[in-house]
Amino acid sequence: MKAVVFRGAGEVEVRDVPEPVLADPADAIVRVEYAGICGTDLHLIHQDGALAPGDGLGHEFVGVIVEAGAAVRGLAVGDRVTGADFTACGACWWCRGGYHWECAERTFFGSGTAFGAQIDGAQAEYVRVPFADVTLQRLPADTDPEAGLFLGDIVATGYGAVQRADFAPGSTVAVVGGGPVGQIASQAAQACSAGFVVVVEPVAERRELAQRCGALAVAPDAARAAIDELTDGRGADAVIEAAGGARGLEAALGVVRRRGTVVSVGVPSEDQWTMPLARCFADEITLSFAIGNAIRDRDALTALLRAGVIDPTVIIDGRVGLADAVRGYTAMHERRSVKTIIVM
Amino acid sequence: MKAVVFRGAGEVEVRDVPEPVLADPADAIVRVEYAGICGTDLHLIHQDGALAPGDGLGHEFVGVIVEAGAAVRGLAVGDRVTGADFTACGACWWCRGGYHWECAERTFFGSGTAFGAQIDGAQAEYVRVPFADVTLQRLPADTDPEAGLFLGDIVATGYGAVQRADFAPGSTVAVVGGGPVGQIASQAAQACSAGFVVVVEPVAERRELAQRCGALAVAPDAARAAIDELTDGRGADAVIEAAGGARGLEAALGVVRRRGTVVSVGVPSEDQWTMPLARCFADEITLSFAIGNAIRDRDALTALLRAGVIDPTVIIDGRVGLADAVRGYTAMHERRSVKTIIVM
Amino acid sequence: MKAVVFRGAGEVEVRDVPEPVLADPADAIVRVEYAGICGTDLHLIHQDGALAPGDGLGHEFVGVIVEAGAAVRGLAVGDRVTGADFTACGACWWCRGGYHWECAERTFFGSGTAFGAQIDGAQAEYVRVPFADVTLQRLPADTDPEAGLFLGDIVATGYGAVQRADFAPGSTVAVVGGGPVGQIASQAAQACSAGFVVVVEPVAERRELAQRCGALAVAPDAARAAIDELTDGRGADAVIEAAGGARGLEAALGVVRRRGTVVSVGVPSEDQWTMPLARCFADEITLSFAIGNAIRDRDALTALLRAGVIDPTVIIDGRVGLADAVRGYTAMHERRSVKTIIVM
Amino acid sequence: MKAVVFRGAGEVEVRDVPEPVLADPADAIVRVEYAGICGTDLHLIHQDGALAPGDGLGHEFVGVIVEAGAAVRGLAVGDRVTGADFTACGACWWCRGGYHWECAERTFFGSGTAFGAQIDGAQAEYVRVPFADVTLQRLPADTDPEAGLFLGDIVATGYGAVQRADFAPGSTVAVVGGGPVGQIASQAAQACSAGFVVVVEPVAERRELAQRCGALAVAPDAARAAIDELTDGRGADAVIEAAGGARGLEAALGVVRRRGTVVSVGVPSEDQWTMPLARCFADEITLSFAIGNAIRDRDALTALLRAGVIDPTVIIDGRVGLADAVRGYTAMHERRSVKTIIVM
Repeated sequence: MKAVVFRGAGEVEVRDVPEPVLADPADAIVRVEYAGICGTDLHLIHQDGALAPGDGLGHEFVGVIVEAGAAVRGLAVGDRVTGADFTACGACWWCRGGYHWECAERTFFGSGTAFGAQIDGAQAEYVRVPFADVTLQRLPADTDPEAGLFLGDIVATGYGAVQRADFAPGSTVAVVGGGPVGQIASQAAQACSAGFVVVVEPVAERRELAQRCGALAVAPDAARAAIDELTDGRGADAVIEAAGGARGLEAALGVVRRRGTVVSVGVPSEDQWTMPLARCFADEITLSFAIGNAIRDRDALTALLRAGVIDPTVIIDGRVGLADAVRGYTAMHERRSVKTIIVM
Repeated sequence: MKAVVFRGAGEVEVRDVPEPVLADPADAIVRVEYAGICGTDLHLIHQDGALAPGDGLGHEFVGVIVEAGAAVRGLAVGDRVTGADFTACGACWWCRGGYHWECAERTFFGSGTAFGAQIDGAQAEYVRVPFADVTLQRLPADTDPEAGLFLGDIVATGYGAVQRADFAPGSTVAVVGGGPVGQIASQAAQACSAGFVVVVEPVAERRELAQRCGALAVAPDAARAAIDELTDGRGADAVIEAAGGARGLEAALGVVRRRGTVVSVGVPSEDQWTMPLARCFADEITLSFAIGNAIRDRDALTALLRAGVIDPTVIIDGRVGLADAVRGYTAMHERRSVKTIIVM
Repeated sequence: MKAVVFRGAGEVEVRDVPEPVLADPADAIVRVEYAGICGTDLHLIHQDGALAPGDGLGHEFVGVIVEAGAAVRGLAVGDRVTGADFTACGACWWCRGGYHWECAERTFFGSGTAFGAQIDGAQAEYVRVPFADVTLQRLPADTDPEAGLFLGDIVATGYGAVQRADFAPGSTVAVVGGGPVGQIASQAAQACSAGFVVVVEPVAERRELAQRCGALAVAPDAARAAIDELTDGRGADAVIEAAGGARGLEAALGVVRRRGTVVSVGVPSEDQWTMPLARCFADEITLSFAIGNAIRDRDALTALLRAGVIDPTVIIDGRVGLADAVRGYTAMHERRSVKTIIVM
Repeated sequence: MKAVVFRGAGEVEVRDVPEPVLADPADAIVRVEYAGICGTDLHLIHQDGALAPGDGLGHEFVGVIVEAGAAVRGLAVGDRVTGADFTACGACWWCRGGYHWECAERTFFGSGTAFGAQIDGAQAEYVRVPFADVTLQRLPADTDPEAGLFLGDIVATGYGAVQRADFAPGSTVAVVGGGPVGQIASQAAQACSAGFVVVVEPVAERRELAQRCGALAVAPDAARAAIDELTDGRGADAVIEAAGGARGLEAALGVVRRRGTVVSVGVPSEDQWTMPLARCFADEITLSFAIGNAIRDRDALTALLRAGVIDPTVIIDGRVGLADAVRGYTAMHERRSVKTIIVM
């Protein structure tokens, strides 16, 4: 079958690879219909050592189960499914508590050994899915599969951040960063009882997208003033930090009110960060780091997508066939596309 | 000054009455700008013994503080405010816990002695407000005062029911009854993380209003089938019962899923109700009765109104001056109007 | 092997039955070390039609896994485990939401067809456990197995009721009924942030047990006065109703405060109950029915038992060998024993 | 009257000062019966510039209201009360949300201008209490006033930290630091559903006190191993950091599990702290800073004290009369006493 694989030094190619087969009774094989190209894919192919040539790529997918092991419960051949971007056993202490990301058997699709043991990529005609009944979620017949495609990654991340922030109804919520995750966080905050939602983002097109989707949007240097006007000068009740690293955290602390909450979902590039400790104590700040978990949240996410409450398809601005996947990678790398998806 | 007062036997009139004066250091006097006519007003004037001739009416109001006692904290003359429909001391065990409705000093505007000691009605040029800093909420300058008018009663009730239901994000929520409170409950459920919201209502115009405001709407006999289709046959995760009494409760139990929650805000006319005990136990149902509390929830409500997340003005279909208030009562009594407001 | 089976008309016997074998890759076989005799067992053998002669009995057990199917995750032969009293698939919508009791594949150990399809009883040398990794919980080495024996049933029930009540820290909690579940509910309420806990129970020995375990205990006719003294006359913030049926519910409503919560875990014998609707509405009561779920709560329960925070062994007042199990049944039926356990 | 006042350079004295009088209708005058000497008092008298000579000291007190302004609601002359250590208006946005510490009118008893505008100290025969109905809490007749003495400060702080940590029932909770606040946090964690509670403390006497009060206690270098044994090597689910500053935070991060929560109540001496950002992100840590709020939590605290669930009197190891207050300061400064109280 055809699959997108790492070629080396920032390059991918579409190549023939063996079709996957069941390796465990808990596995399923999914015929992929849609696969996303993610910023993480670009990051991995440009990062030294994360991938070996020939490693498959892709962790966002929607498809149909074509084979299921004997231990797969509650799913059947022919089901259209969407996958979490990672897998977990579903049975250990961590999984039982909703902490699947900490499962000792965690793997992450299409990322070499970057986040656990190596498994297949989903930018391929078929993908093998370990712990299929934990990882996969049946997609309702009336749900747009292009929406379902994002459930496993950015929707889980944006929604998870909002849940972690746990703000009171009517709260003014700031989202630092208007990329894919920030856009979803903005939608999720609106869905989950926020009053005003303010997306802080330097790029005008992204601000416009956020505004079309119901948020207010401001450039970084106008953020504090805009939020102060909405809050009698108090600042944002909660901030979702979706930009990443020290700069993102400082931007978040710059707009959060006393006794407010910052949830950071932006992957930091720094190992350390100089926290303003005295201020955080005096203001009783809560700072929380969150990684999306489409396994824990799959029923809520599916329900919100199906009802149209969260619509991640607004970020799609490119579609390619599998044979043209390299073109999609290039468009995203050159920032001509925010989100290109592969339609089989 | 002019005020709407009870005349007797289902009738009101606009009459000259003395202007209110401060009776306690915690009082304020509000010059009323907008006052609502509520179903409760109609109920009171047709109910034997609730009111004496001359008793003032009205408990929904927006206005400007023209006088404030020495013990009023945090509010000043000139502030535009909206009131809760009832008053409470703010300092007792009940009030501290957010149970202001149980305060021993509770009074309810413009309802004779029906719900506590007698105080003024708000369908008047001026109204005296006891415990003003507890009862009143400053209205932000950029908030439509006609929206603020509903904060104290139907918005508090619809929102309070949704909060009490405490459903998980993505839940399918049914609202039994598409009257004013049901319409707000529908909006509040959508605002507070529901997936599908289904308003169950026999009157076509009310269903259309619910749909224009983002809900699905169905006639009672189609409710279970519609909800089953949305929930794989499980039923609604939560039901807001806003019709009232045994019939409303039975309709709610007819659509709720096993382990689901019913919150009833519809005032019952029956003293007793034959509950299907064995079924409620087997299905682990939660049944909760809730009365709105605009005092407890005022900051959330103000924030949601200001952001436009809940918009109660959609139910207004009549506006009269104070001199013409009787006409408004008649229109609502004859069901030619769902909600008429008095604009001073 | 030997097992306790139904003989007919209120009688059990210990008889040779075939040893269980794996029937599904998700099954495990457990060698039973401890099994409880439960009020439910007595109820089943005296109830017409629930059991057929020869049906195995028992749903409380601790033992060691001696065989595990290929699809059993996270458990291994040799693990000492305690079981939930029922089984569920762990993979369907209900199970994913923590509603395992509603799973279409629910079965209940040793109860004929009373609560789903028939499976083995646990008062036997060996028991087959479907969906073993969902149903079983590994018991920590330092946890008293006689405590673990109760995790699957009464601890889950008493704890589940307290969780459902969801009271604020410092709440005055009443427990109606000082039987096994009521005693655990009392312990669980104390563990989970109650202030005063008052057990309402007519039998002096049960009141003394409750008091030894940290609660206050009063006879039913003294309950309201005692609770009023603790609460300035308000009544209990939350009531756990562990007596059952209309009488239990009325006792609960008799002591709950306005805006309080009643959680009923007592199995009702009536189909219907005349609820005081007007009062429940005026007082904004919440009434919730709850069935224990040792699958959902197993990690919390294991942790609380291991730390000694909840100690269910206080109710044991009889121990018999398997050969003498009939004697245990008789003692409990004749109310000479509150709780007899079978030690293999 | 007599009062403890700052003399200069680390010294206090008992001196005659004018009796306080009502300065506002919301004030009350309290005749002090018990006053605590707090670590904060010692800190203030040794800190440059915090106090001017003659400034009164003390913020922990129990006494009887002898005079109440006209605007004081719900309290009367003759009531025995305990005070929060600070005051707030009770009516602003912050106060309404339970964030009284952020109230623009916040003051802190007996601390010069260190935490807001200057008000009286409570180590005196009488103390003036602004916003008396917000600041004071009536003490039940059957509650030990020496327990009530701690409600306003260390009980509020220890309890508030536990509430902020918001751990699941059965959680293993570590408390870093076994001083007064750590001891209360340990008791509060046990009261509020923890499984094992482990106090990490270098001083043997403090470890023994923690163990007498139901916790496990270990020296810092044994903490991780002890906690690992209780948690299968995962670490503590939640950590209350009651030691302060960078060292406390690092000790907390050293024992917290992945996806765990650290709540810091220890006042930091550093302005900045180098946070291990990559680790906190990868492990999805939540870090929260919390200051006690006896106003927000007063009903819960009073109820827990009255029921004996939290007993702060265990830390008292010295009692002096007001005339001998200097001796109490000295004993605490020389670490011969953990907690000395002044009994009038």
